[in-house]
Amino acid sequence: MTAQRADARRNYARILAVAEEEVAAHGADASLEQIARTAGVGSATVRRHFPNRRALLEAVFSERIQALCTRAEELADADDPRAALLDWLNALTAYATSARGMADALLQDRTADEDHVNACSARLSGAVDPLLHRAALAGAVTSDVTTADLISLVTGIALATERHPDPAAEASRLLALTVRGVSPKG
Amino acid sequence: MTAQRADARRNYARILAVAEEEVAAHGADASLEQIARTAGVGSATVRRHFPNRRALLEAVFSERIQALCTRAEELADADDPRAALLDWLNALTAYATSARGMADALLQDRTADEDHVNACSARLSGAVDPLLHRAALAGAVTSDVTTADLISLVTGIALATERHPDPAAEASRLLALTVRGVSPKG
Repeated sequence: MTAQRADARRNYARILAVAEEEVAAHGADASLEQIARTAGVGSATVRRHFPNRRALLEAVFSERIQALCTRAEELADADDPRAALLDWLNALTAYATSARGMADALLQDRTADEDHVNACSARLSGAVDPLLHRAALAGAVTSDVTTADLISLVTGIALATERHPDPAAEASRLLALTVRGVSPKG
Repeated sequence: MTAQRADARRNYARILAVAEEEVAAHGADASLEQIARTAGVGSATVRRHFPNRRALLEAVFSERIQALCTRAEELADADDPRAALLDWLNALTAYATSARGMADALLQDRTADEDHVNACSARLSGAVDPLLHRAALAGAVTSDVTTADLISLVTGIALATERHPDPAAEASRLLALTVRGVSPKG
């Protein structure tokens, strides 16, 4: 790798990291110019990697999904299948809470991103299904619960807590309530 | 009551009923003109009762909250406190699913409606707290669960299922999962 290419790669990683924070803070209003300033690169450099904000949002989104997949894979062999699943659900909730703005931004133009979002969902399901399956075999969840259900519930909690003074803490509390059940006794 | 006033009252009720359906179907895009046409009255009549769309949305919203309060009051003396609470949660979910567009529309201009929405929330809490309290005394829910928690969870489910092909059925399924718990065994 030439020095120039190594530079480009570092820039890319730095821009992506800054973009993640900007998007978490400002959602759809995240500005490419602000991202360039914070990353200490020129706007032209940002635009070379990401021709528009959508391309950048998709890259940030993919990066986060990949991190959640990696976490699921790390947890796949854990001793306690229930604890492993709950650990992953907490990671998903933390992600969904910090990335609310991003999800909103991506969903605002549905047609353009439906394929991308669907591909990410499929990737996530592939990584989490084994975790869920092990938890079901251990009797910790019933076999009719799907990864999609878990993602829906966590997404809903993130959306419902968006205006709370401390969204992360509130989402984590509501997740715990959803896990143990509002009224588990039948 | 004069015939004229009785007419006005019937018009008001009819406009409100039509508005509810329009808002459920079209959310923030509900049109006062379409509501007038469907209700079989002139636009001027609609505007006499509701000077703008926001006034109409607030009236629809209040009407629905009142119905949920009435349902809670009806259930307050039911034999089975857990069944009564779940019955009410189902009603809330059905409402939240059908009224998603309305909540969105009202929340779009937060400052203008925060007071109205907060007043409605307070009214709802007042009606539901006794139901929840009885369910807690019966051991069906733990005492740390609040009416606000229930409303957050249901609102989240409604938001997360918005793009589902059958939002009402999906929301009802996810509510059942939230009630029994994703993984109640500790």
